[in-house]
Amino acid sequence: MMNWISNKNILIVGLGLMGGSYAKGLSRLGFHVEAIDKKQSSIDYAVAHGIIDRGYAYPDETAIRKADVMIFALYPEILLSWIEEQKHLFKYGLLITDVTGVKSCVVYEVQNALREDVEYVPSHPMAGREVYGVENADDGIFRGANFIVAPTEKNTQEGLEWCKCLGKILGFRKISVLTPEEHDEMIGFVSQLTHVIAVSLMTCNDNTHLVDYTGDSFRDLTRIASINDEMWSELFLLNKEYLVRHLDSFISELSQFRQMLSDGDREGLREKMRLSTERHSYFIK
Amino acid sequence: MMNWISNKNILIVGLGLMGGSYAKGLSRLGFHVEAIDKKQSSIDYAVAHGIIDRGYAYPDETAIRKADVMIFALYPEILLSWIEEQKHLFKYGLLITDVTGVKSCVVYEVQNALREDVEYVPSHPMAGREVYGVENADDGIFRGANFIVAPTEKNTQEGLEWCKCLGKILGFRKISVLTPEEHDEMIGFVSQLTHVIAVSLMTCNDNTHLVDYTGDSFRDLTRIASINDEMWSELFLLNKEYLVRHLDSFISELSQFRQMLSDGDREGLREKMRLSTERHSYFIK
Repeated sequence: MMNWISNKNILIVGLGLMGGSYAKGLSRLGFHVEAIDKKQSSIDYAVAHGIIDRGYAYPDETAIRKADVMIFALYPEILLSWIEEQKHLFKYGLLITDVTGVKSCVVYEVQNALREDVEYVPSHPMAGREVYGVENADDGIFRGANFIVAPTEKNTQEGLEWCKCLGKILGFRKISVLTPEEHDEMIGFVSQLTHVIAVSLMTCNDNTHLVDYTGDSFRDLTRIASINDEMWSELFLLNKEYLVRHLDSFISELSQFRQMLSDGDREGLREKMRLSTERHSYFIK
Repeated sequence: MMNWISNKNILIVGLGLMGGSYAKGLSRLGFHVEAIDKKQSSIDYAVAHGIIDRGYAYPDETAIRKADVMIFALYPEILLSWIEEQKHLFKYGLLITDVTGVKSCVVYEVQNALREDVEYVPSHPMAGREVYGVENADDGIFRGANFIVAPTEKNTQEGLEWCKCLGKILGFRKISVLTPEEHDEMIGFVSQLTHVIAVSLMTCNDNTHLVDYTGDSFRDLTRIASINDEMWSELFLLNKEYLVRHLDSFISELSQFRQMLSDGDREGLREKMRLSTERHSYFIK
């Protein structure tokens, strides 16, 4: 399974929590891993802790030229411009993937910017933590998590297999393949909508005096309410068509529930609850 | 601390998950505990497993007459009628509390129905599980949980102390005192609104095909989506003034967020996220 990486040079671009966790996992597996990140302190930390073999706080020409595999863990809006600026250095046959949480707004543009011999296979590791930076890198977050490959018609079968394999050796539980659009609709619901809900629970009123009274439900629903505003506002805006649609359907459902409540429609409320319980059973088995 | 219960007979009315968990905790502490529940199988199970000393599938006159302490773990709408029917049997000086999740709609009526010598101190153990019945009783759910005492002007200082003491010996982490109205407003937000959100996430569209793609956030936000429709519809309707108000403010917040998203108002979104992160820090320290 791992023959695609023997003697391959891996270059990680963007060494934050995700880039660092990839680096950690791949180094642990014995690969030669280098990284580029604009923060020298991140590079220094990663070298000192054996997370990477070598790193650069600038787009080092030699490092880019020799890379057989590049993994982008940059904010989506920087990704395309970085590739545009450096692609003349890319090795023949280079394989690229990324960790971007939105796909259709990135994938086609990046693929169109690349030479024919360079293959970019989009993927999304559905893992994360509420903390940031390479100092918190932890490839343990991949265990039990989902890895989505989101190819387009431009991708080859070999490219697809390579990317699935990457997810597998990093320890992801389940590797799935979705189109970029299916991915974005799905992520708009299971991840982005849930973050909007957590944030709105925090902002809809000043609830901090309730700190002594919260139980498990409130804690669970707001665990993700500490949120990197720079990253998430970007992800939300890049996926806004899907997210707005999900928000509309969720708001309309809440309004319907509110109306039943105000009408005293007990049977209507119970029906909603029974449907919820029934659907939820699919998620807990 | 425990002298208020030495030689006291405790009668639990309603032997489900909560009644059973009280019984288990109190039996473990060495008290004599009896229970009344309409299900003979619940009584049999509880006796066989040492959860209670004796039990009855009907309102046993002797058991009621000799009780010094009664703990009601009935649905709120049954509570008042049960008390009306049996109160002529209540011992002089009987102390009563309950586990009802809504307060103002129950408390005053019950207190008005009782003789002067009988004291009902309303309380709400903020603990629970997603499973039901005495078979799942577990007094471990009280550890780390909040116990709210919600007295009225009719309550005495002694009654209040007794009820706080009950919470303490059962292992609750924090004992608070709120008025019934403060309690209901708080519970409408931290517990009821969160349950409406979890249910609406499940019912707003058929999401069961997403089962393979859900991550921690979706799981956290829907953990409470398996819901006892009989109990929760009753609790929601009994507290509907507060819950409708919270729903309105939450829906309006979501709509504002949706508008910012649709307008591409990045700075507005980031401001919401920063406020969320700041407020959330109060809950995680």
